[in-house]
Amino acid sequence: MSPLTASATANSNIAFIKYWGNCEPKARIPANGSISMNLGGLETRTTVTFDAFLDSDDLILNSQPVGGAALGRVSEFLNRVRRLAAINHFARVESENNFPMGAGIASSASAFAALALAASTAAGLELDEFALSQLARTGSGSACRSIPSGFVEWQADGCNPDSGAVSIAPPEHWDLRDCVAIISREHKPTGSTEGHALAYTSPLQESRVAGAPTRLAQCREAILARDFATFAEITELDSNLMHAVMMTSSPRLIYWQPTTLTVMQAVQNWRQEGISVCYTIDAGPNVHVICLTSDVELVAARLRQIAGVQDVLIAYPGGPARLVLEHG
Amino acid sequence: MSPLTASATANSNIAFIKYWGNCEPKARIPANGSISMNLGGLETRTTVTFDAFLDSDDLILNSQPVGGAALGRVSEFLNRVRRLAAINHFARVESENNFPMGAGIASSASAFAALALAASTAAGLELDEFALSQLARTGSGSACRSIPSGFVEWQADGCNPDSGAVSIAPPEHWDLRDCVAIISREHKPTGSTEGHALAYTSPLQESRVAGAPTRLAQCREAILARDFATFAEITELDSNLMHAVMMTSSPRLIYWQPTTLTVMQAVQNWRQEGISVCYTIDAGPNVHVICLTSDVELVAARLRQIAGVQDVLIAYPGGPARLVLEHG
Repeated sequence: MSPLTASATANSNIAFIKYWGNCEPKARIPANGSISMNLGGLETRTTVTFDAFLDSDDLILNSQPVGGAALGRVSEFLNRVRRLAAINHFARVESENNFPMGAGIASSASAFAALALAASTAAGLELDEFALSQLARTGSGSACRSIPSGFVEWQADGCNPDSGAVSIAPPEHWDLRDCVAIISREHKPTGSTEGHALAYTSPLQESRVAGAPTRLAQCREAILARDFATFAEITELDSNLMHAVMMTSSPRLIYWQPTTLTVMQAVQNWRQEGISVCYTIDAGPNVHVICLTSDVELVAARLRQIAGVQDVLIAYPGGPARLVLEHG
Repeated sequence: MSPLTASATANSNIAFIKYWGNCEPKARIPANGSISMNLGGLETRTTVTFDAFLDSDDLILNSQPVGGAALGRVSEFLNRVRRLAAINHFARVESENNFPMGAGIASSASAFAALALAASTAAGLELDEFALSQLARTGSGSACRSIPSGFVEWQADGCNPDSGAVSIAPPEHWDLRDCVAIISREHKPTGSTEGHALAYTSPLQESRVAGAPTRLAQCREAILARDFATFAEITELDSNLMHAVMMTSSPRLIYWQPTTLTVMQAVQNWRQEGISVCYTIDAGPNVHVICLTSDVELVAARLRQIAGVQDVLIAYPGGPARLVLEHG
């Protein structure tokens, strides 16, 4: 029998309507739906090899062997794949990111999307895109959005246990850019999984969730109509709503740093100047500054001039998770 | 007839449970109750003289004649006093603050409290404390809290039209200090009156208001028990709740500046070190850092070391609005 191996790549993604809080934390059934764009150029590449000679799962992340909680989370995910495929070999997982981890770019999204595709393929499963998205979701919620292509909606009607993501527009639909202003490369003090568990300790989470269907519809329509002004309003509002919940949870989570606020205010000023630009911020200090391609050089140059901005990564609307064909 | 004149002083106050949004904006009937401490040392002194020889109301603020909207707001307030006292003279109003205006220290609170006491006395009215508090409220909502002494609760049960404030503990009850970290002396872009009108455009305001009675009870009990740990938790949560509403209103209001966030995070770190200290922030960038008297020198010194903190004003629990007896 030939070795059970496969390689896959997946992009990170940035949510415009945010995922924060679960109906069911273990299966990552989200409290509300979300909409995102895959971040072409910010990707994870993962190779999975199920091997009868291994006596445990091995994880090699950016060329370093990794154990502990990270390996535990990957093994738990592989157990699901092994159950589905009815195999029992341990696996070697080798994974590389081309962007900094743990500071607001969803490295777990691209990581678990690439892992879902590579592991399920290596195990001989033939999952369709939606089933693959559901599988990726069980590793990291936002990973389900890195499976389909371009602009993606993760549907979550009424805590549906079959929750997964679908493409609402291909990458070429709208020529947006995400200028990611890197403000810190340090690991955030409270990871997303712990953060999600705190969402309902905020007195504001229920209202945020209750309004999500309206915001999802507004954001979806703005994307489909390429209506930047509406898109900017709803994206900034939704980001602030998530941070409002975070900063009023118990304990209070403030992911913003002073430079985060500097960038937010600069972006609002630039929009008042007439530039099509808006911000959105995940569970970290970095600011995703979304603009039209025509303004990307100006926006990136201005961001680099802000004291405290360490780097600016530029991503474009990205494609789906893909298998990498090995030459051998 | 001797000239109808009186002088009064009133302290500013800092709310621990915040007032944001009205049931009835014109009469300033608040959406929720609030609890504050008068800020001894940060005061307005106002002299009102009703004079048959004047042909308009005059306002002199910090030795400068003032017209426009500020004078209009004072005249409207004086009209109420004239109606109550059945007089029709115009008035000269001279008012001095000993602290910077318009940047998060509630100058309108001390101003309208001093004005209410001086104008009603000059007009020959003899209002009791609660009636005076109600009168001050009609000029600036938070002014009603600067009438009674010490720690004060502004009651607002069910949009009661007779809403006013009462003392819940005298100044000497708890030896707190407010170290006001001045981050900007500029006028804020959106004043409180306009801001209050936007409160219900936030999808979070209803939840904030719904939880206010619980937070009021927790804060009141923490003050009465001098329980700093509970007081700090509820005060910071309530401040974040108000800013959560502000930053999700339409338009979004972000009063924080980068240094505001630096101070907030420093205060949380100091509390983890064991210092009894917490923050609260009004509709402006300045941070009110509340601590025990025993720690005030340490806290003020550390605040002064933070880049971007321009000054630190220190206030103590203050007394009620008082008449000033003129020598002459």
